[in-house]
Amino acid sequence: MAFTFQKNTEVRFRRDEALLRRAEENRPALRYTQFRPLGTVKLTQDPEKLGGVWTAPDSAGAALMAEGMGRGDAVILDFGAPLVGRFSVGIDSVGSPMDAPLTLRLRFAELPFELSMDNSSYDGWLSSSWFQEETVHLDTLPARLELPRRYSFRYVELRVLDTSPKYRAVFSEPVGLAQTSADRSNLTDRSCGDARLDAICRAAEKTLENCMQEVFEDGPKRDRRLWLGDLRLQALANYASFDQRELVRRCLYLFAALPTEDGRITATVFTAGEVIPDDTFLLDYSLFFGVALHDYLTRHWEERTFAELYPAAKMQTDTALQWLDGDGCFHAERAYQPFLDWGRDYDIRCAMQGVLVFALRRFLWLAEKAADPKLPEYRERLNAAAAYARNALFDAETGLFVSGPARETNLAAQVWMALAEVLPPEQSHALMEAAAARFAPYREARTPYMMHHVVQALYETGHPDKARQLIRDYWGTMLDMGADTFWEAFDPDRPEFSPYGSPALSSFCHAWSCTPIWLIKTYEK
Amino acid sequence: MAFTFQKNTEVRFRRDEALLRRAEENRPALRYTQFRPLGTVKLTQDPEKLGGVWTAPDSAGAALMAEGMGRGDAVILDFGAPLVGRFSVGIDSVGSPMDAPLTLRLRFAELPFELSMDNSSYDGWLSSSWFQEETVHLDTLPARLELPRRYSFRYVELRVLDTSPKYRAVFSEPVGLAQTSADRSNLTDRSCGDARLDAICRAAEKTLENCMQEVFEDGPKRDRRLWLGDLRLQALANYASFDQRELVRRCLYLFAALPTEDGRITATVFTAGEVIPDDTFLLDYSLFFGVALHDYLTRHWEERTFAELYPAAKMQTDTALQWLDGDGCFHAERAYQPFLDWGRDYDIRCAMQGVLVFALRRFLWLAEKAADPKLPEYRERLNAAAAYARNALFDAETGLFVSGPARETNLAAQVWMALAEVLPPEQSHALMEAAAARFAPYREARTPYMMHHVVQALYETGHPDKARQLIRDYWGTMLDMGADTFWEAFDPDRPEFSPYGSPALSSFCHAWSCTPIWLIKTYEK
Repeated sequence: MAFTFQKNTEVRFRRDEALLRRAEENRPALRYTQFRPLGTVKLTQDPEKLGGVWTAPDSAGAALMAEGMGRGDAVILDFGAPLVGRFSVGIDSVGSPMDAPLTLRLRFAELPFELSMDNSSYDGWLSSSWFQEETVHLDTLPARLELPRRYSFRYVELRVLDTSPKYRAVFSEPVGLAQTSADRSNLTDRSCGDARLDAICRAAEKTLENCMQEVFEDGPKRDRRLWLGDLRLQALANYASFDQRELVRRCLYLFAALPTEDGRITATVFTAGEVIPDDTFLLDYSLFFGVALHDYLTRHWEERTFAELYPAAKMQTDTALQWLDGDGCFHAERAYQPFLDWGRDYDIRCAMQGVLVFALRRFLWLAEKAADPKLPEYRERLNAAAAYARNALFDAETGLFVSGPARETNLAAQVWMALAEVLPPEQSHALMEAAAARFAPYREARTPYMMHHVVQALYETGHPDKARQLIRDYWGTMLDMGADTFWEAFDPDRPEFSPYGSPALSSFCHAWSCTPIWLIKTYEK
Repeated sequence: MAFTFQKNTEVRFRRDEALLRRAEENRPALRYTQFRPLGTVKLTQDPEKLGGVWTAPDSAGAALMAEGMGRGDAVILDFGAPLVGRFSVGIDSVGSPMDAPLTLRLRFAELPFELSMDNSSYDGWLSSSWFQEETVHLDTLPARLELPRRYSFRYVELRVLDTSPKYRAVFSEPVGLAQTSADRSNLTDRSCGDARLDAICRAAEKTLENCMQEVFEDGPKRDRRLWLGDLRLQALANYASFDQRELVRRCLYLFAALPTEDGRITATVFTAGEVIPDDTFLLDYSLFFGVALHDYLTRHWEERTFAELYPAAKMQTDTALQWLDGDGCFHAERAYQPFLDWGRDYDIRCAMQGVLVFALRRFLWLAEKAADPKLPEYRERLNAAAAYARNALFDAETGLFVSGPARETNLAAQVWMALAEVLPPEQSHALMEAAAARFAPYREARTPYMMHHVVQALYETGHPDKARQLIRDYWGTMLDMGADTFWEAFDPDRPEFSPYGSPALSSFCHAWSCTPIWLIKTYEK
């Protein structure tokens, strides 16, 4: 979907205080660790890396920090690994007494190329407030500068905008105070026997770890909040790694506690101050509430959690079923906005039909547990939707699903139909065989989020070699291009692609990209 | 003098802890007062005002603050009068939930034209760190933004650099928390019967008040520290207004406590953190230590202060007398750098001969009190210096003093010779008559500091009408051009003149400009 902001300020929300209390009871403690930079680096040109920029060691930077920096001097600290947290540094003056304030600019970057960009010329449509950049004035030295905000960074650029001709600024003891709610001591069984896949898993773990804060954040650099679609995938990756169920539980309660008056669940919740639901609604994300609850309860059955959260899942299902007609056709185009992917524009109808069937299958498990009196009706409607897909949307000639009145063939449709299991297994196998022939290397997927579903569909339909190779190629290429953690968006043909008009504000540690941990653990055993 | 930075990092200082303790004992309490802006204003063009910029009321600004500001929106708050202190404002969001940080730029200005300048294009040679400007990010709202630094301002510009398309920022309850150590309840006898002069005195009082902090600062916007030459004039203005002797005492002790190993007194002391003497030395300022001590003790005789500070005054005198030769010629050009004024380049020798005689006369009063055994020698050297001035530097033909081998005639020479009383009274009267004919309206003086000495010389030599008119013209023109407080530098022919290459960093509340209070009280009774 192309990027648009939703503003639905007329929507009224309910607050279920009991559910909010449960969310609060499950708030995790944050763990703090101090890190020192490995050293100073300078930017270098490297066409193999994202943005064509990489780093080389620069001992002159360390010397400059120690001897004194004047107007225009800059150094880049490299912490060696990405961290989410606060930054502090000692500053003193040398030379004559400090006769004017020190003006210092600090920039924080996940990847070196971010430091090569001129943020002042940014013209993307996301808020420029997301730039990880501060300009501070220090009136007296010595001082320890302790920035109060949190950043996501491996690199810190210190640039002296001005001192005075009489003194220079010296810097000492830079510290990154990392924070996460993830507990690394939970990690076990960490090799799958393949070095490339292991390297991918380690970066995926770090991605998840840095997004695990007081909620599962989508990206610690930008957005820094709980999104429902991201939560579903983070929870899966969490089950396969840190396995901290309380954090998943907390996030599910947060969504359930804040429905609209007509019962819809927001796509995203703000928790930095007062807990606030956003007025953004995404149809697929809403359906994924039930999927995420199913995923949780199949691993950790909890009677109370089930009882308290089932009604919200049911409400999302009932809402969506309004747009399923008597023929089993899901009119997602008449419902509220789906997300699916930051991909190229394509007809979403067939893919959303798949999403509905996929979600209904998992909801049915919940409805059975609830002995829901509407169970027969849900089952019937699921069958109708699946039958409609088979009968009206499958093109036997090409062996692919088609979408919309123009009978468009797109990647998302095949993937979601495969995941929705609307065809018998051998036909689903053939479907993904045909999809691979048509779409590999799957450049219609512009995000690791969509690519996760491609990989899962390949695994589920009996194409483990293709699935494994896609993980190696797609996530592995990010590693080759300099990733320490996985990115929000990635088009290998256009590495600087950003859904936001400028890669400067893309997130390079993004939760929905961490799923190889789960995919490999689930399908490579 | 043209502007140069002194860097003398090889100089070693002594610290007299007993004198520093006395300075500390006299540290004043700061008084705090909350102010609210009168309203919002917009910049207007007005060729009569400094920089061609003035303001007009702008009720749209207040509405914008209340209704919500988005990317690029700006308002200017007008507090109606200048204050020195901190600023805070309440901020909340309206619209959809706040889904990105707020980036806010705040600029503080003493005069409207400062807000019309683009600080990023500044190319003066003072540190750009002095710009009263902050860019802050707020991650969550509502919040009360309390900036920790102190500013000197009447106007505050709030400019939203970015929100996000989903919300706008609303602002409420802006507060300026003014601070000063001046006690307005000490002010009495506040009219001289002339409205123009009274208006000048009120602005001069405000100038002094805003510079009275934990020391007499030279300018609360820029430098924000104790300078010896400024102290001498601030002390005089203080005697004629707030009359807070403890602050003068504190400042005298600060200078005396921190001499170099060879006994020289620094031109300026930093007191914001640890008390530190600057490595800048100005010959005339050093001599003014004794003058300031004389001025203090003639008003407030204190045996202990005299005993503890006389040695420092004596050391400055003895140091300067090294360069007074056997003929009575003062070789200031061989000594260390004098200041005199931010004026045009001129030969400083004759003026410095005058400064020496002026200072020696006052030092002699101290030496007499001390019954200094060297008293006869001091008296003899004073007489020699005065005689040399009369005999070698006075041009009977023009009735003016000349300076240097080229026998240059400049304003500073006449003024300092008049103040030094090297000629009999009737000849001094004629000297300033001739000086007026030659130099009025005294455009060689580029600062209120130099103009103070011109006015005093006119009063002292029996030209009260000329002196009074000069106050009305020079300080009064600043009022006409928008001054609430008096400026660091002012050339009525080139109002944007700055000694620093750009008026953007000139100080528009500068201590040495506050002397009309003293001049009028002293000479207009």
